[in-house]
Amino acid sequence: MTLLLRKIKEIRNYLRNIRCQNNSIVGFVPTMGYLHQGHIELIRRSKMQNDLTIVSIYVNPLQFGAGEDFERYPRDLERDLSICEEEGVDIVFAPLDEEMYPEKPLINIEIQGLSNILEGEFRPSHFSGVCTVVLKLFNIILPDRAYFGEKDYQQLKIVERLVKDLNIPLEIIPVPTVRDEDGLALSSRNTYLKPEERESALSLYRSFLLAEKLIKSGDRDAKLIKEAIREFIMKHPHIKKIDYVEVTDPDLRPVEEVKEGDRILLAVWVGNTRLIDNWRIGDANL
Amino acid sequence: MTLLLRKIKEIRNYLRNIRCQNNSIVGFVPTMGYLHQGHIELIRRSKMQNDLTIVSIYVNPLQFGAGEDFERYPRDLERDLSICEEEGVDIVFAPLDEEMYPEKPLINIEIQGLSNILEGEFRPSHFSGVCTVVLKLFNIILPDRAYFGEKDYQQLKIVERLVKDLNIPLEIIPVPTVRDEDGLALSSRNTYLKPEERESALSLYRSFLLAEKLIKSGDRDAKLIKEAIREFIMKHPHIKKIDYVEVTDPDLRPVEEVKEGDRILLAVWVGNTRLIDNWRIGDANL
Repeated sequence: MTLLLRKIKEIRNYLRNIRCQNNSIVGFVPTMGYLHQGHIELIRRSKMQNDLTIVSIYVNPLQFGAGEDFERYPRDLERDLSICEEEGVDIVFAPLDEEMYPEKPLINIEIQGLSNILEGEFRPSHFSGVCTVVLKLFNIILPDRAYFGEKDYQQLKIVERLVKDLNIPLEIIPVPTVRDEDGLALSSRNTYLKPEERESALSLYRSFLLAEKLIKSGDRDAKLIKEAIREFIMKHPHIKKIDYVEVTDPDLRPVEEVKEGDRILLAVWVGNTRLIDNWRIGDANL
Repeated sequence: MTLLLRKIKEIRNYLRNIRCQNNSIVGFVPTMGYLHQGHIELIRRSKMQNDLTIVSIYVNPLQFGAGEDFERYPRDLERDLSICEEEGVDIVFAPLDEEMYPEKPLINIEIQGLSNILEGEFRPSHFSGVCTVVLKLFNIILPDRAYFGEKDYQQLKIVERLVKDLNIPLEIIPVPTVRDEDGLALSSRNTYLKPEERESALSLYRSFLLAEKLIKSGDRDAKLIKEAIREFIMKHPHIKKIDYVEVTDPDLRPVEEVKEGDRILLAVWVGNTRLIDNWRIGDANL
């Protein structure tokens, strides 16, 4: 039976008792809801590794910029709860805005060299909002492990660094991106796509395969590969623009010569929908 | 018997066991060492309110700017330990730099409207360094209460806001400034003062009494009071310069008309020593 809690005090009291009495190890899956198979992977990993699994469902206004999709972001708590029930989640924490932000927070958090590149260049206060809500949730739930998808690779790297720099007493567990059978990375934002746009959105995944092919055939120049990716994606209808295509090492430092383990990261507007995806070089079975 | 611990893992393991077994409430006094009566007040408050009192002794390099007094900041662990012993402190946590910062942290933390004024104007990255080390220590020790002196009033306000914005599960307890009999606010940096400079340093405290007198006699214009303070302090020998004199409400918002409960804050160079002090209006027995 999944327990739904909406107040910070409630979940704190509940966990305080259970933690000490049963010596329970707590796994935590922070989400913005509208759960899909990607979230379910996170939940399953947590169920395997911990005594107790907590899922938070909260569309964090602080990580959306002005004019972004905060209002239209898909929400369906009923559906999310029944998925959590089915997966054996112990607690769903779904706070209201006034519970999370009784006042507008004054804190800004930057991770130098990580917050301001890629996504951060196009969404300037995004990662400060992410770091703030993640710290809040960590402080409310005090988990032993927290699960983050590689789909948001830069977010994962930033949260890892946050945990390291601040000695937060928990372990971050990265979980590989889940893709639809046709390769589209799962995202709650995929619901925005019209069928014909979804077809074009496949170009993101396919551009990774193209890059792998180029690399296998001996092209190792990052600039060349990025150009090929851009050109390939832009050929598709409904592609409005590419915010960035970058090739970096696993710590998000741009590389000139591509090698296995490096990452391709990109953000592309398909119609009015902004999609991000990333790829670990060497992961394609060509 | 005070226990000296120098490793994060040690103190974490020690506290994990004790916290759950005995349901102990933990009080925490973060310090940069070279303990004086001001610190002793913090320790005594913690001893009264908690089962376990932990003092950290760590001169945090991150909160010193280039050219500031990090190297010459006074240190005497032997003496600090014997004071802690005498006061019945349970644990002293005195980590080395390589334990606290195995890598240079990438995080920057700003509290909008609080980090960049007063001290922050003259010491631009100071409060980011303070917030970082405070968060690290909180995450290592997980105290129920933490004690901060009003001597560093802006720091207190910033830490209070940090705790609020991030839902850190602890209570900040402010403790009034301790002064020598002649009024000089206790500070480890007072050891820098030559005897003749110390005499001039009394002008800080005395300027607060002057301000109180002016206010009692009907002067309520903050500008006028700040001018009177500046003029009074500058009259003294060895005063090199005044970084700022400000009058604010309790939340550090500048005021134009002064009322009881407002704060005077100042930073003054006496010779090569930079002193800060602050005063709650209404606290003088005139």
